[in-house]
Amino acid sequence: MNKNVNEIPYKIYLSEDELPKQWYNVRADMKVKPAPLLNPGTGQPMTAAELEGVFCKELVKQELDDDTAYIDIPQEIQDFYKMYRPSPLVRAYCLEEKLGTPAKIYYKFEGNNTSGSHKLNSAIAQAYYAKKQGLKGITTETGAGQWGTALSMASAYLDLDCKVYMVKVSYEQKPFRREVMRTYGASVTSSPSNTTKVGREILEKFPGTGGSLGCAISEAVEDAVTHEGYRYVLGSVLNQVLLHQSVIGLEAKTALDKYGIKPDVIIGCAGGGSNLGGLISPFMGEKLRGEADYQFIAVEPASCPSFTRGTYAYDFCDTGHVCPLAKMYTLGSEFIPSPNHAGGLRFHGMSSTLSELYHQGLMEARAVEQTSVFEAAQEFARIEGILPAPESGHAIKVAIDEAKKCTETGEEKTILFGLTGTGYFDMYAYAAYNDGTMTDYIPTDADLAASISKLPKIK
Amino acid sequence: MNKNVNEIPYKIYLSEDELPKQWYNVRADMKVKPAPLLNPGTGQPMTAAELEGVFCKELVKQELDDDTAYIDIPQEIQDFYKMYRPSPLVRAYCLEEKLGTPAKIYYKFEGNNTSGSHKLNSAIAQAYYAKKQGLKGITTETGAGQWGTALSMASAYLDLDCKVYMVKVSYEQKPFRREVMRTYGASVTSSPSNTTKVGREILEKFPGTGGSLGCAISEAVEDAVTHEGYRYVLGSVLNQVLLHQSVIGLEAKTALDKYGIKPDVIIGCAGGGSNLGGLISPFMGEKLRGEADYQFIAVEPASCPSFTRGTYAYDFCDTGHVCPLAKMYTLGSEFIPSPNHAGGLRFHGMSSTLSELYHQGLMEARAVEQTSVFEAAQEFARIEGILPAPESGHAIKVAIDEAKKCTETGEEKTILFGLTGTGYFDMYAYAAYNDGTMTDYIPTDADLAASISKLPKIK
Repeated sequence: MNKNVNEIPYKIYLSEDELPKQWYNVRADMKVKPAPLLNPGTGQPMTAAELEGVFCKELVKQELDDDTAYIDIPQEIQDFYKMYRPSPLVRAYCLEEKLGTPAKIYYKFEGNNTSGSHKLNSAIAQAYYAKKQGLKGITTETGAGQWGTALSMASAYLDLDCKVYMVKVSYEQKPFRREVMRTYGASVTSSPSNTTKVGREILEKFPGTGGSLGCAISEAVEDAVTHEGYRYVLGSVLNQVLLHQSVIGLEAKTALDKYGIKPDVIIGCAGGGSNLGGLISPFMGEKLRGEADYQFIAVEPASCPSFTRGTYAYDFCDTGHVCPLAKMYTLGSEFIPSPNHAGGLRFHGMSSTLSELYHQGLMEARAVEQTSVFEAAQEFARIEGILPAPESGHAIKVAIDEAKKCTETGEEKTILFGLTGTGYFDMYAYAAYNDGTMTDYIPTDADLAASISKLPKIK
Repeated sequence: MNKNVNEIPYKIYLSEDELPKQWYNVRADMKVKPAPLLNPGTGQPMTAAELEGVFCKELVKQELDDDTAYIDIPQEIQDFYKMYRPSPLVRAYCLEEKLGTPAKIYYKFEGNNTSGSHKLNSAIAQAYYAKKQGLKGITTETGAGQWGTALSMASAYLDLDCKVYMVKVSYEQKPFRREVMRTYGASVTSSPSNTTKVGREILEKFPGTGGSLGCAISEAVEDAVTHEGYRYVLGSVLNQVLLHQSVIGLEAKTALDKYGIKPDVIIGCAGGGSNLGGLISPFMGEKLRGEADYQFIAVEPASCPSFTRGTYAYDFCDTGHVCPLAKMYTLGSEFIPSPNHAGGLRFHGMSSTLSELYHQGLMEARAVEQTSVFEAAQEFARIEGILPAPESGHAIKVAIDEAKKCTETGEEKTILFGLTGTGYFDMYAYAAYNDGTMTDYIPTDADLAASISKLPKIK
């Protein structure tokens, strides 16, 4: 507890003039670029014109831009960032001491805003470009609810209409998430719903389904393309999202550089890849340019193991198959993790950019079981005082594992991990953990083979 | 939205070496001191020896110390503070712009820690002294749940046993609060309970009661004094709590001084007075010493209006009458606000220190109705991006009122208010507001006269 002799503070905050003025696009430094989105009808790369029916114009430009390394952050977005950024880079002195590890542990904490996670970084960017395009509103899906909350906040700020399709199980299990979105003026619909064609079809095919991210995406896309003045926005997976989320890594790198600290291991949880991609981007850029080396670890739930047990192939991003095809590590678009899986990181696929980096052997991945995640999350909460989101717990679990290895080997590794958010709306899951009723689930090889066998055939 | 031309940043963070190393005790600068606690049996001031049966020794010393202006913050507590402090002092540029006010609005935001409020500032101090005294554990009560959560966190950090009596209505309406406390290893009991004598008596007298803070205090005190190695701790009202909470005001003043800013109006919500007292302490000190003048406004709920409609007299702090008598503005110890009243600020009395300052005309008070509070809170959430606790909404309401007055008069007042915490566990109340089912309640003069008529007679 008595560590203040150390010259590195508990929390490194950047000043406002040190905040990033440009996002960093890691694709610019990749020799082999992520595979393009394909039109499922023609099997050809999606053109800007095709994408602009679904997405905002400027965001399509960002999505397709594999070459520009730095993209200016509009002043209005920079100003919004100042309301809740910089996020602190925290030195986990207390955790280090309790673990008795020689490792130095840092985490970039993105939970100090009302959306409770890093999602706001891309939400405000996407809402801003929608507003600038003169749109009436935007549609989206949300699973655990962090993205929907973030988009509601950004939309309220910009006076944009915001329609959120919330995965039915979350809608019912997280009424408070729903209320936060309503407080920010969003309309929230339980998905699958009767309000869309694709929703009605899914309900007919799977009556009583609890829904999935893939279903909710399909509904939100249909809503956007069938209503004048609306576009669809997505909180993860897409290249543009990783671009916006690069503020996490850029801030972290600036803060570390100020103190001459170079991390050895960089760890993030991975569902669709928004946080991990954002955190590692500038560090991966250095690795790609041969300027530095880092070990990157993606942590995913054992119940939805896209990287570690998926296949690298073109697949649909959504259950209703209304979206373009993306080449990614995927478990198949019909894969739905067991309902006993708490929290987010439930997407069947993965960011195309991260998939390509993983495919090239530039990063590793580990799958962890949820009881071990909650054990680590609870330990972390008691020691570091922050109650983490279950998603963040995945990164914490592996960070603690790595720190414990250092205790054994005596290595003084510097570990950086992304603490994506807080768990205040996940207390049912914590209660299950505390009551001892939480179980683990690992899909069988047969389960995965069945869903992967249904991958689309490219024309 | 485009305010970055201004040289004052959106958020002023102090560096770790600028954090307070001493608490400030405002009583030292008061010519007329707050009235002492009395032994209800003898009518004589409580001695240290008598108080030490209930409270930790060092805390009793702080409670009775009317003379020492600055008290060292132990290094261990300073280190714990570094995990979540400094809290940001935020310039509400966005709110100013939307209100079109010439006023400059600042708020000290205490919600960026897992307890969700300023309560942690005193919780860690009280837990620390308990640990230092070699105690096994501490007992307390909690209403809205912020204090119980904070104490659970502090106790987990120090490996102290923590027993929380949670007001029954909150226990049932805020299951997630309860789960957070459990996650931090605390035992949480619905109050009134069958586990204490006073609880059983209250249950017998008022079967089916939803409980009150006053009941829960009685139970927690009884639990502490009947178990070896336990003491009782309290999150508000007491002098020691205002002392610990002075970190809020000290940080705010240091941050303002750095930019040469002098507030004209300082606003805080007031239940027992912990936040308000902490925020205003160093400023009030200047006023008491004749060095500066400020307008101080305490904001309380119209449904529990201790300052504005209470009487200044000796009263019990608890319903079971096991506590000493305190001289304070009170509505009578049997006063329980209507169950339709959301959130905290439900205590029938008020800090003795603040009561004396108010009695001397050094501060003002206003009572506001809850629908107007939620209206202000929701407006603030949408503009400033922070979803406030209902308690904090009281201060926001009056800060906005004051800023609007400036719009009319053209005065460029500088307004500082305390944003005590976040509302993530208060979404039932927000839902009621959003659904239009929230109502206001103002006790009748007859109601108040009835409970005030039962004030104890001093021997």
